[in-house]
Amino acid sequence: MIRMASGWFYLSCLLLGSLGSMCILFTIYWMQYWRGGFAWNGSIYMFNWHPVLMVAGMVVFYGGASLVYRLPQSWVGPKLPWKLLHAALHLMAFILTVVGLVAVFTFHNHGKIANLYSLHSWLGITAVFLFACQWCLGFAVFLLPWASMWLRSLLKPIHVFFGAAILSLSIASVISGINEKLFFSLKNTTRPYNSLPSEAVFANSTGMLVVAFGLLVLYILLASSWKRPEPGILTDKQVWVPVPHSRVRQGQV
Amino acid sequence: MIRMASGWFYLSCLLLGSLGSMCILFTIYWMQYWRGGFAWNGSIYMFNWHPVLMVAGMVVFYGGASLVYRLPQSWVGPKLPWKLLHAALHLMAFILTVVGLVAVFTFHNHGKIANLYSLHSWLGITAVFLFACQWCLGFAVFLLPWASMWLRSLLKPIHVFFGAAILSLSIASVISGINEKLFFSLKNTTRPYNSLPSEAVFANSTGMLVVAFGLLVLYILLASSWKRPEPGILTDKQVWVPVPHSRVRQGQV
Repeated sequence: MIRMASGWFYLSCLLLGSLGSMCILFTIYWMQYWRGGFAWNGSIYMFNWHPVLMVAGMVVFYGGASLVYRLPQSWVGPKLPWKLLHAALHLMAFILTVVGLVAVFTFHNHGKIANLYSLHSWLGITAVFLFACQWCLGFAVFLLPWASMWLRSLLKPIHVFFGAAILSLSIASVISGINEKLFFSLKNTTRPYNSLPSEAVFANSTGMLVVAFGLLVLYILLASSWKRPEPGILTDKQVWVPVPHSRVRQGQV
Repeated sequence: MIRMASGWFYLSCLLLGSLGSMCILFTIYWMQYWRGGFAWNGSIYMFNWHPVLMVAGMVVFYGGASLVYRLPQSWVGPKLPWKLLHAALHLMAFILTVVGLVAVFTFHNHGKIANLYSLHSWLGITAVFLFACQWCLGFAVFLLPWASMWLRSLLKPIHVFFGAAILSLSIASVISGINEKLFFSLKNTTRPYNSLPSEAVFANSTGMLVVAFGLLVLYILLASSWKRPEPGILTDKQVWVPVPHSRVRQGQV
């Protein structure tokens, strides 16, 4: 069973890796080729780190980190090393995200531009806030040893749901961010956004790649045959059979 | 079991109904109070139907229609009436969506404005195209009588996944659309978007409501205890017991 599932799984991972790399590389190329490259000095070139780091942190690293428990290797043996990997990868994603936020806030403050007024920024900051809560709660409940199994199994579906929800919010933020950036950058140019210059085609395509990556992560996350079987569910030599309560009580099964 | 689940379920439905109504009413109020109201004459007042009908069609009606099989009443008795309701509600959502697209294309063509250049429009038209494919495939496979049970059970998880995926794309489209509309409407005004006038606060909040509605739909859709139990899985008097293959083959269970 595991061997059959893992063929498709690894093919999906290969596609996921390619799509994720393309998302980051395309965003870097957009900023480097059309927007003048990168700096860390409060200028518009500092802003250019923002799209790259948000796509890398909130989408690509976050998406990859979410899928740790879908690796068939994580299904056997102790769970703790995989929990540590899951938490560590998400922490890396969060650090990239925070640096991405520092880039945009510093650029705004340096140029006396208002912060947090657009819907893009409202949604984006909500996603980052929920990500921080999710990481801290996950660390406290699933990694530290104090929580009971009852509390963990109560919170697990909520943790999984919010994991997927935060990724969806991040994708919506990235889409509105790319859209907004193109309207800003291409206004008052000879070829504005509505004439669809090559930069617009390239950045729109990058946005569509981010959407494709996000949907693939959500598919792998939600496909039931790729979920870690819970302990005690079945061995290789067992099947589930519906049996009347009375026979179970009488010890006949 | 059904009775226990349905208390929380109906509370969620009440919240869903309130949020959905607020999403539509807030969008109407935004267009009526700040953007001059509605007309059907190719003017900017015709455009104003676009946000209202897309929020109503692609988010609120679509979201409600997705949840038909989560009603505990649909779990017993024949499935066909519920399938018809699911298809009919989605068709209504699709009609609203198409009228919403007619509004924006007519406004653009009338004012010689380019169509389909922004990332908002690329993503939005992709969501509508996938919705059309999903409806036709769903109609052909799950409603017409020719498809085998094997084909239906093969396609069902894909149908459910794309149902949720299309809603996520719609929400990302709505967010980028509201963001874009506010930059357009508030530029060259005494109080631009970055000074956060009351219109911007109101429309941003409408966007956040749409996100909250979408997440609630996805939560109800994915919460396993609210899914229709498949026929033959268990009766009230049975439990699942893991049994060795050999005993099943020997007819001992």
